[in-house]
Amino acid sequence: MNFELRVLGTGSAVPSYGRFSSSQVLHTHSKDFMIDCADGTQYQLRRLGVKNTRLGHIFISHLHGDHCFGLIALISTMSMLHHTNDIYIHAHPDLERLLQPQLDYFCYDLPFKVIFEPFDPLQHSTIYEDRSLTVETIPLVHSVPTSGFLFREKPSAPHLNKERLAWHGVGLAEARAIKEGADFTRADGTVIPRAEFLTAPTPSKSYAYCCDTYYSERIIPIIEGVDVLFHEATFAQAESHRCKNTLHSTAKGAASIAAKAHVKQLIISHFSARYPQLDHLLDEAREVFPDTLLAADGMVFQF
Amino acid sequence: MNFELRVLGTGSAVPSYGRFSSSQVLHTHSKDFMIDCADGTQYQLRRLGVKNTRLGHIFISHLHGDHCFGLIALISTMSMLHHTNDIYIHAHPDLERLLQPQLDYFCYDLPFKVIFEPFDPLQHSTIYEDRSLTVETIPLVHSVPTSGFLFREKPSAPHLNKERLAWHGVGLAEARAIKEGADFTRADGTVIPRAEFLTAPTPSKSYAYCCDTYYSERIIPIIEGVDVLFHEATFAQAESHRCKNTLHSTAKGAASIAAKAHVKQLIISHFSARYPQLDHLLDEAREVFPDTLLAADGMVFQF
Repeated sequence: MNFELRVLGTGSAVPSYGRFSSSQVLHTHSKDFMIDCADGTQYQLRRLGVKNTRLGHIFISHLHGDHCFGLIALISTMSMLHHTNDIYIHAHPDLERLLQPQLDYFCYDLPFKVIFEPFDPLQHSTIYEDRSLTVETIPLVHSVPTSGFLFREKPSAPHLNKERLAWHGVGLAEARAIKEGADFTRADGTVIPRAEFLTAPTPSKSYAYCCDTYYSERIIPIIEGVDVLFHEATFAQAESHRCKNTLHSTAKGAASIAAKAHVKQLIISHFSARYPQLDHLLDEAREVFPDTLLAADGMVFQF
Repeated sequence: MNFELRVLGTGSAVPSYGRFSSSQVLHTHSKDFMIDCADGTQYQLRRLGVKNTRLGHIFISHLHGDHCFGLIALISTMSMLHHTNDIYIHAHPDLERLLQPQLDYFCYDLPFKVIFEPFDPLQHSTIYEDRSLTVETIPLVHSVPTSGFLFREKPSAPHLNKERLAWHGVGLAEARAIKEGADFTRADGTVIPRAEFLTAPTPSKSYAYCCDTYYSERIIPIIEGVDVLFHEATFAQAESHRCKNTLHSTAKGAASIAAKAHVKQLIISHFSARYPQLDHLLDEAREVFPDTLLAADGMVFQF
């Protein structure tokens, strides 16, 4: 397991049938990354037992309320729960001027800093990097500048084959040198090439979040082959005529993107408040891309 | 029944054990009045099946996040649900400058107006009046300017006693004249005083909301004799030493206020996140004021 995704909300703008609006937490390499933060996100974190002490980076796809209204309450509560790590908010540049006055008024004594990291949602670029991971923007098509996010693990180092190390009598210090790039020289002077001791590294995993967006094939080169694509599917086919005005997608459209981008798995979410049941959205998606799952509030997905 | 109170959240600043933070809706005379509006209030309205189409006035006790962070999401969602009545927000004057930039950005196309009605929380005054009701502020003692709210029905007109009307042969038009203030003159010229036809009016009901506050006997003259007092009870006696720093009350303190103000019923709420169970708070309050209820998220209370 490289990634653990916790879906906090699967509703669209109007909450309904117990569905909260968009928010999720991606856990990887001992860090929690939040993606979007709708009104009520702090309740979902508590209800689902997610500790937010490891949270350091929050990525906001776009400045519609159902993706960012929960930030101020989350930050305020984190302060009361003695969170100490600085919080970086990656978002459209406008968010800082909207949120900072509220932070100054309601959260003037935070035990951590809130640092805005603005990015241009319409440009594909890398907006976060640490030693294990990069996060790239995925420009989407919506009524305001909107970006998806591609979380991609960096390639890990090849593994050392213990049996071959033992066979050639390689000591601990020499094994470390091989790992760092050296060949191995035996006592008789024979040089064994480094490649002899190596096996393939654990494959790097990748996760793409695309919400909210109109059907857009422009994202395909960016998300090509990802392990999991989380794509909005606001409407069923019967309401597909609504996509153009609202700039949302159908479940079938999401599946079509998944198929064309050769992703391994698709999760659909952001369901219109008109659907108490979602089976037909899942059916419509699976006709095009069989390996599709319906997101649900509280769902935990490991890959 | 004159009032119907729906409690949406009973937690304090940090949400816990499924308790949302402070918000409630008081229904009376075909209108809904919201009191406080914590983060997530819109979800509670939907979960509890409260239609917000009758909502016109929102009263905010003070500018701590757990009493007002839900406003922007509520207003945004009301717009999507085709609410059309103007919304009046009665609050500390600072709220307008904090909320207006967000309204301008996220809710620029509302089908209704949002009108701020600022008041001074530290002055006892009448801040709302219609033909059935007044709302008065109740200055409280908290770390920021805070006000409770006293909803008081106006005295209703005396009822006409139908038997006496019939006995004296009073017609419909004459009965209306009696109701409006006239005496009745019989065919023989005898004047029957108006009071002869009247019976006592239905008693006016009153409701006081006091949250958040340190124990304060200064509120007693204002809330004297109310039908229902909703008073915060953040702490049990074992944590009473915390009241002074946090400027909150104990359950016992709330009960003491209820007893000294001769209210008919007490509801306690705003429970600290430290209490998974609340029985001991109820016990401590009932020792002092037996007619006490524990508020619970979703509770509906008619009086």
